[in-house]
Amino acid sequence: MAKKSEDLKAYLEKQLRDCLPGNSIDCVIFGYQNQELQILLLQWKHEKVWALPGGFIRLNEDMDEAAQRILSDRTSLDDIFLNQFHTFGNKKRSKTNSKVEPKEKEQFIKKLLGEDEFIINWLTKRFISTGYFALVNIEKTDPQPDLLSEACEWKSIKEIPALIMDHVEIVHKALQHLRIQLNYLPIGLSLLPQKFTMQDLQKLYEAILQKPLERSNFQRKMLKLGFLIRHEKQMTGAANKAPYLYSFDKKKYNSLLEEGIGFSF
Amino acid sequence: MAKKSEDLKAYLEKQLRDCLPGNSIDCVIFGYQNQELQILLLQWKHEKVWALPGGFIRLNEDMDEAAQRILSDRTSLDDIFLNQFHTFGNKKRSKTNSKVEPKEKEQFIKKLLGEDEFIINWLTKRFISTGYFALVNIEKTDPQPDLLSEACEWKSIKEIPALIMDHVEIVHKALQHLRIQLNYLPIGLSLLPQKFTMQDLQKLYEAILQKPLERSNFQRKMLKLGFLIRHEKQMTGAANKAPYLYSFDKKKYNSLLEEGIGFSF
Repeated sequence: MAKKSEDLKAYLEKQLRDCLPGNSIDCVIFGYQNQELQILLLQWKHEKVWALPGGFIRLNEDMDEAAQRILSDRTSLDDIFLNQFHTFGNKKRSKTNSKVEPKEKEQFIKKLLGEDEFIINWLTKRFISTGYFALVNIEKTDPQPDLLSEACEWKSIKEIPALIMDHVEIVHKALQHLRIQLNYLPIGLSLLPQKFTMQDLQKLYEAILQKPLERSNFQRKMLKLGFLIRHEKQMTGAANKAPYLYSFDKKKYNSLLEEGIGFSF
Repeated sequence: MAKKSEDLKAYLEKQLRDCLPGNSIDCVIFGYQNQELQILLLQWKHEKVWALPGGFIRLNEDMDEAAQRILSDRTSLDDIFLNQFHTFGNKKRSKTNSKVEPKEKEQFIKKLLGEDEFIINWLTKRFISTGYFALVNIEKTDPQPDLLSEACEWKSIKEIPALIMDHVEIVHKALQHLRIQLNYLPIGLSLLPQKFTMQDLQKLYEAILQKPLERSNFQRKMLKLGFLIRHEKQMTGAANKAPYLYSFDKKKYNSLLEEGIGFSF
């Protein structure tokens, strides 16, 4: 156990010496399951508190590359579209959440690694943290805890546990940006199975907006965007009563990602 | 002259020791004049290159406060709404613009301040820079160069001079965000005089979008938003032929800033 902690300390110190001090990245990774929007959270060893997946920017990396690496390390997914949405730079951001004590970070590091001045100084200084959000298909992910965590789990946004520092604010800001994006970008390709019903699509929008939408109005809007392909029903008795299945027209979807939807100008 | 450079060096070193190393702020300050969108730029002493107004985050400041201070120092305006729009973290961002050599910054600092190891190390390291944009009334501003600059001037976005580092990219990204915002937030209160014609408002939109808009369609959209107050014409012969004057209904304008305009959901 002591040996393991020494190994971890040496490994971590090597990693940190290779990173920009004072800057971090936090990822809000959204998935969709059981008709609920979920986010991926890490539970710290010992302290049992929860945190967003995050990390630091290596000296030889662009910031976007660092975010991609962190996302890929936690989800085992590559090439996921990341949205940089906000940078958090309040001087008291470590102390934002009164439910999770700010001293926890230092205590936690000491418990896990012992008294290591370099590591403690490095990790407990003021950080400017840039938030990225991603939309992923939960079924394709294989959540992996990081060095300092014992669990990495999906949690419904309706039941987010107490989070360290300003991570609740980071989640809310990500949600706010995602909701605004719904109005000018297509969504769903990375969250839904290949074929889905109109109701599935509506449930996804409702889960993100956290409010019910009117069915015929929703259907009319979605069809008008022209990014859905309607599939013919199989001519068997049961399937005949089933609702139409749709898939995304990827070419049209991608061009709407470029042009935006619903823009007045 | 030598004395002055020493003073500047001592002053700058004191300032820098009081700031977060490795993080900076760049401000894209938009104004509107002569039917053109303008941005405020600084021209460096000696090198004559142009740059966005920027600065660093003091240890005792929130990042948003730092941006507000920088904006206020350059424009003499207080309480301007700032939009944080993107953080720039490419490892080669100093070398983005081939027209302006990356070595320029170091040479420039040496010319201005001599060989000061602390200052040169501090200023030439890799920076993660957060961009903020603001919309201001040019007539109310009193542009002030900073310590390292000899000029602070408004330039039309149609005629932006060569800028240092990735500042052209920062301007383009700010414009992109401003254009997206036009579709979901009201605009104009801080850019237009108190009373204006519908054509003035349309010219502002056209200057931001850099494309002509159809007159009757534009008028219909704007009136539908309900944030304009139409003023009665004075009943004199000449004024009778003049177009209607409008002003913003501030209460409605502010509520649209909260709720968004043109949202489908």
